[in-house]
Amino acid sequence: MKEVKAYGTNAVSAPLHELTITRRTLRPHDIEFEVLYCGICHSDLHRLKGEFGEPFFPLVPGHEILGRITALGEEVRDFKIGELVGVGCIVDSCGHCDSCHEGLEQFCEEGVTFSFNSLDKVSGGHTFGGFSKSYVCEDRYVLHMPSFDNLPMAAPLLCAGITVYSPLRHWQAGPGKKVGILGIGGLGHLAVRIAKAMGAEVTVFTTSPSKVADAARLGADHAVLSSDEAAMKALRGKLDFILDTVSAGHDVDRYLGLLRHDGSLVVVGLPSEPLSVAAYSIVRGRRSLSGSNIGGIAETQEMLDFCYQHGIVAEGEVLPISQVNEALDRLERGDIRYRFVLDVTEL
Amino acid sequence: MKEVKAYGTNAVSAPLHELTITRRTLRPHDIEFEVLYCGICHSDLHRLKGEFGEPFFPLVPGHEILGRITALGEEVRDFKIGELVGVGCIVDSCGHCDSCHEGLEQFCEEGVTFSFNSLDKVSGGHTFGGFSKSYVCEDRYVLHMPSFDNLPMAAPLLCAGITVYSPLRHWQAGPGKKVGILGIGGLGHLAVRIAKAMGAEVTVFTTSPSKVADAARLGADHAVLSSDEAAMKALRGKLDFILDTVSAGHDVDRYLGLLRHDGSLVVVGLPSEPLSVAAYSIVRGRRSLSGSNIGGIAETQEMLDFCYQHGIVAEGEVLPISQVNEALDRLERGDIRYRFVLDVTEL
Repeated sequence: MKEVKAYGTNAVSAPLHELTITRRTLRPHDIEFEVLYCGICHSDLHRLKGEFGEPFFPLVPGHEILGRITALGEEVRDFKIGELVGVGCIVDSCGHCDSCHEGLEQFCEEGVTFSFNSLDKVSGGHTFGGFSKSYVCEDRYVLHMPSFDNLPMAAPLLCAGITVYSPLRHWQAGPGKKVGILGIGGLGHLAVRIAKAMGAEVTVFTTSPSKVADAARLGADHAVLSSDEAAMKALRGKLDFILDTVSAGHDVDRYLGLLRHDGSLVVVGLPSEPLSVAAYSIVRGRRSLSGSNIGGIAETQEMLDFCYQHGIVAEGEVLPISQVNEALDRLERGDIRYRFVLDVTEL
Repeated sequence: MKEVKAYGTNAVSAPLHELTITRRTLRPHDIEFEVLYCGICHSDLHRLKGEFGEPFFPLVPGHEILGRITALGEEVRDFKIGELVGVGCIVDSCGHCDSCHEGLEQFCEEGVTFSFNSLDKVSGGHTFGGFSKSYVCEDRYVLHMPSFDNLPMAAPLLCAGITVYSPLRHWQAGPGKKVGILGIGGLGHLAVRIAKAMGAEVTVFTTSPSKVADAARLGADHAVLSSDEAAMKALRGKLDFILDTVSAGHDVDRYLGLLRHDGSLVVVGLPSEPLSVAAYSIVRGRRSLSGSNIGGIAETQEMLDFCYQHGIVAEGEVLPISQVNEALDRLERGDIRYRFVLDVTEL
């Protein structure tokens, strides 16, 4: 066992402070890496506020974890010391259910172990996230990190990136497809870049006039203010697919009506209120309201390689981990375009 | 123009009575047929009660129309006098939009003309349904009716049959697939028979203990009382597809949880209240809540041929058209297993 500095908390909605956690002694397939950067995601905030149920304490968030390998278990073959690696949301799954066999570890039938605040079925206790000096993880959940020019801003790909890449790939965004992106935030801004790189024609929907210009800068072909009734009406029945990244309550019927027959609106946010769907919105045109949740490990590697090839990283600010509370406050107020990444090297 | 006897009404929620309507003089592609049998569907009842908006009067219902050809327009090639034919919900569509080109006339972008109480874009006025002595329809919306042993009970295939066949086919019910059928009524009882004939393993969900035995008789492999918590829990994540035929409000989250990853729950009823969906129910397992609406003309012909081949017709009672009001009353009270068909030959 190794003592490691981290930022965490012992109470719901309390500020984070420096504390010490332990990382396990390496098992044969374990990789230890020094954390360089860790993105901050809305689900870190939800967890800190106790919105996903009572957390385990101490609670150390962080699940967009990017670092450099410092030690390898004796059975690790595909990684070497000094290599850049990443860990996203998933650090364990059963490995033998249908979902795991199909590369959909996120839907493991025995339940996934998440990279932070999740019961650790092997070691006992619970997992500590990437707001820490180092991380230890079994090799099959560790990603090879390409050498992005802007390395810190590649960290958010590990959760936000795969969360949007996976449904865009699954529902076949590409040339000839008209794709809508609902909401421009941590998820939406990456979705625009990835959907464009896949070759789709991208229309952004936003409630914020200031984001209309931003959508064009990010590469969107069109941007529509959701309050613009004429623009909304003109798009009825025109889109093949809509990726809905909005995590607040909103009127999905309004957007379902923009889909061609057999089109899908796919939610990746988790609004706390149920979505309300008029049966007519889906019966008419054989449309679907679907969901998607991160992606499997192999697909996450595919996404990293795709983003590297297309020069895609997140946009945002890098702050030293000592300013984590400021970053969380600003994230909660929506005062960030679009993603915070913590520089953990000072720890 | 030809005067024809029919049963209809001139006011919302008023009893039907005998009246006279006119059928158009045959155009080159028109087919005239004597109506032999006409099914009664819940949407006839909804329309009579004004639940789909203010009807046109006189209102003559009936859209599961089965008859024998009495006259042909000069350009009709594929039909002959005396042949058994059927007309379902659709009697006109634009013929040139993407949906029409793809054989999905039900989603025609310019709007479908329905077989009753729909504005007739060609002749003006509105359409009169199959509760009438004869019907006139353009040949491309007329189905060849196989010679079913129980001919009257084949009439409900023209709406109820295609409404369940189309989604079962589209979502690939077949060998190795576990299919749930939610609700056993006019739609559900046909869905069980058709899904079994396609080779799927069928589980019926019903709120009515008396229908559990009926489900087995109809051929279902399993029947579950929705209130049986243990049985519901045992099915979590087990089904590939659920066809939801319930038209009253109900808890779809409860059933979404029974789907495997990538499974779909498809509604074909039209509950008047919106469906409430927890985002988690679809995000977890990349599930879909989808809709389906009847089927196209070619697919309706395919369904009729499939049902004939597998000996599938509806189950229910045949009443003379003079007893139409009694049938409608009993349908509204749920006092029919499972479908009424009117014998129109006495008219």
